[in-house]
Amino acid sequence: MAGEASNGAGATLDDWGAPTARAIGLNELSAVADEVRELIAAGQERRAFERVRVLHPADMGLIIAGLPGASREALLRVMSPQTVAWMLQHMNPVEAGRFGARLGVRGLSFVLGQLHPQQALATLRRLPLRRARAVAETLDQPLPVAELLAEEAGTAGALMVTAYPTVSADGQAAAARDSVAELGPARLKFTHVFVVGPDGELVSEVPMVDLALAEPDAPIADISAPVVASVSPATDAKECARLRRHYNLTQLPVVEDGRLTGVILAESLLSAVVEQDTRQMLQVASVAGESADGPLSGSIRTRLPWLTINLATTFLAAATIALFESTLAQVVVLAAFLPVVAGQGGIGGTQTLTLIVRAIALGELVGVTARRLLIREAMLGLLHGVWLGVLVAVVAMLWKDNLGLSLVLGLAMLGNMVIAGSVGAAVPLFLRRIGVDPAVASAVVVTTFTDVFGFLLFLGIARVAIDLLV
Amino acid sequence: MAGEASNGAGATLDDWGAPTARAIGLNELSAVADEVRELIAAGQERRAFERVRVLHPADMGLIIAGLPGASREALLRVMSPQTVAWMLQHMNPVEAGRFGARLGVRGLSFVLGQLHPQQALATLRRLPLRRARAVAETLDQPLPVAELLAEEAGTAGALMVTAYPTVSADGQAAAARDSVAELGPARLKFTHVFVVGPDGELVSEVPMVDLALAEPDAPIADISAPVVASVSPATDAKECARLRRHYNLTQLPVVEDGRLTGVILAESLLSAVVEQDTRQMLQVASVAGESADGPLSGSIRTRLPWLTINLATTFLAAATIALFESTLAQVVVLAAFLPVVAGQGGIGGTQTLTLIVRAIALGELVGVTARRLLIREAMLGLLHGVWLGVLVAVVAMLWKDNLGLSLVLGLAMLGNMVIAGSVGAAVPLFLRRIGVDPAVASAVVVTTFTDVFGFLLFLGIARVAIDLLV
Repeated sequence: MAGEASNGAGATLDDWGAPTARAIGLNELSAVADEVRELIAAGQERRAFERVRVLHPADMGLIIAGLPGASREALLRVMSPQTVAWMLQHMNPVEAGRFGARLGVRGLSFVLGQLHPQQALATLRRLPLRRARAVAETLDQPLPVAELLAEEAGTAGALMVTAYPTVSADGQAAAARDSVAELGPARLKFTHVFVVGPDGELVSEVPMVDLALAEPDAPIADISAPVVASVSPATDAKECARLRRHYNLTQLPVVEDGRLTGVILAESLLSAVVEQDTRQMLQVASVAGESADGPLSGSIRTRLPWLTINLATTFLAAATIALFESTLAQVVVLAAFLPVVAGQGGIGGTQTLTLIVRAIALGELVGVTARRLLIREAMLGLLHGVWLGVLVAVVAMLWKDNLGLSLVLGLAMLGNMVIAGSVGAAVPLFLRRIGVDPAVASAVVVTTFTDVFGFLLFLGIARVAIDLLV
Repeated sequence: MAGEASNGAGATLDDWGAPTARAIGLNELSAVADEVRELIAAGQERRAFERVRVLHPADMGLIIAGLPGASREALLRVMSPQTVAWMLQHMNPVEAGRFGARLGVRGLSFVLGQLHPQQALATLRRLPLRRARAVAETLDQPLPVAELLAEEAGTAGALMVTAYPTVSADGQAAAARDSVAELGPARLKFTHVFVVGPDGELVSEVPMVDLALAEPDAPIADISAPVVASVSPATDAKECARLRRHYNLTQLPVVEDGRLTGVILAESLLSAVVEQDTRQMLQVASVAGESADGPLSGSIRTRLPWLTINLATTFLAAATIALFESTLAQVVVLAAFLPVVAGQGGIGGTQTLTLIVRAIALGELVGVTARRLLIREAMLGLLHGVWLGVLVAVVAMLWKDNLGLSLVLGLAMLGNMVIAGSVGAAVPLFLRRIGVDPAVASAVVVTTFTDVFGFLLFLGIARVAIDLLV
């Protein structure tokens, strides 16, 4: 129960009870959220808190983060800082980050300032690095955060914990158990005990399962297994996430100068994965880093630069059309078909692009040559272009009864689909080769190509074949 | 080493060694893949196999799956079925599914037909349900697959394993250890022992860590913890993935008619997460279910229907423009600016859409009212529209020196950005309300709106203000 955590400012980590509340479904969660919002609107913050305090901390946090600003603050005023910190401790890292963003640096400083230093430090570690730094700077009590603040965001060093179970390579199972027990409540997060040599070097690892089965005097060498993967503190979080996924790892040791210096827990690796996978989706649409219900200013900062860049690219398309003003003046009906050719190219290019960006991100394209992918997508564009070209020609013929127009339209469609497939594959593959994340900016480049070439092809062929059209 | 696995058709699960090879980076993986491709091209399949057999099975699988069809078959001919099955066993489920797709039903039947039934069954369970069914039908040896085949794809029942460690609620730690040991190599995948009552009902769970610390005669009641979440076999895989993420779970028990009937392992939950998260990205671009280097026919089946539907929607846009043919005939330069207004609206709408689809998928919008999100996005559209409207008017003025045109363009831009924000939010929220996955089809609907309303606004205002333009 949440109540167990609200036991005074002197509480330490060991007093932080594990959650005992059961999970509830999304519908029930939404119903409770509605109830809480109404109670607060009616000025009954205490009753609202009674309603959420029986929930799992992950659910409490989700509901509170989703409240409108004023209601959230009203509710937080009746909660103890211990309960807020306990909640952050049991939320998943992505949701904890979102919750921290809602509280803001001032709200977090207020909460952390009233905690036992050990609790404050543990809570700080749940927050994204940049926010943790900002909060740490405002705190009166000195926390041993130097090492945390020194790490670079988005690296293994920023994800790792520095307290983990170890045992000497010439030790026995009993020593490994002692090391696990010393961790207190944090012990539950570990799936392995790490075996270290005399100089602190990582030798192997003991799976918790095999430690559970071992006799107390079993030699560590008999129950340990080789380490599949380790990283350095500077390793990129994306690479850590790839290693976890590809090799099915549950945690990842971090080694520096030959010595074990940290361990990345599964939950951190996973939130890095979720971040990576869904961020990609956001980056393709250039809204990465935003929250769907965060402050407007953050959304404007993320989106407006891209919208402005995109405006420049649409002017390229406009300039292309302007080249053919005389052709358009002769056959005004051509204007109606401009979005048909360009729109289909854009959709086709984005399909190819999305597929390739995702395959690159998941590391699926190892050993698959760029040439093979390019030929494949150009071929697909050709096949799609033949079908769509015939279809568009037939529909245009039925609508406008102009054979010349239909032929021009069908040919332009065919050409633009081939361009869409080729460019949709070439752009992300090229960006990967020069070391740029293909999820960023690819979409704008690809649709610019399909717009400009779509208009060039359509209006260019029309100008050449103008006698067929008028 | 891979070699350990190639020990004759009589081998059982216990003979399947755990991988001992270390992880390698993506660059080294690519280099080995190139080497292997060249060796096979030179007719040296055996040397190619010697090159990959020292790798971790996850790496072997990735490299082999990425080879062109003929090379892959040549390499597989020199590998024993045991090695192929051992590899599948140690790949992550998503990559195993991709590998299975490359082998095809015939290739898989050939491999599985030569395995010990226990191994064949374990291998079958690594494959996506539909493929596993197709392969099972072709096998001569009768496998106990009835229960597997009865489950519905995409549910907890299809993800769960049916062998897992249990202990009676009135038992002691020693009994839990016996249950873990009985699982053989599969024991390493579990983080909990499940505590069951006299009728097989799920009572609580013992974390493996606390089992490792317990004395043999410790009562189970003293080391067990409440179960946070359980599901039924019919629960949707997406909901399982949400529970894992939201509550930070490592495995998820499956309960039917009050009795524990299965357990979903972390790796299955995670591949469901990856599937869910990245599938979304693919669905927004309507390429879900495709592989970037799979057969062309699969890609055409996925993409062509959407391209065809989209063609219909672009004709809506074309019909809108056609309504204003007389206006366009009077001021041909308007045609050049058509893609500017529509394109910006499309980008803005897609930004909003992507953000909301992702937030819905991650369960972030609990308690956030649709009204609040709609107002927020319409407001953002207005702010973006003011900036982009002024910008586009200034640029058009500099380019075409036509004040009327600039005003019309700026106003249309402002209006279309508001529409883009509102529709980008309204469409996925509406689809969620009526129970349709918002990732599917939202993009086509949103861009159709922004195209049609963009043209209506731009050309409509132009017609009304035609005296300013000529």
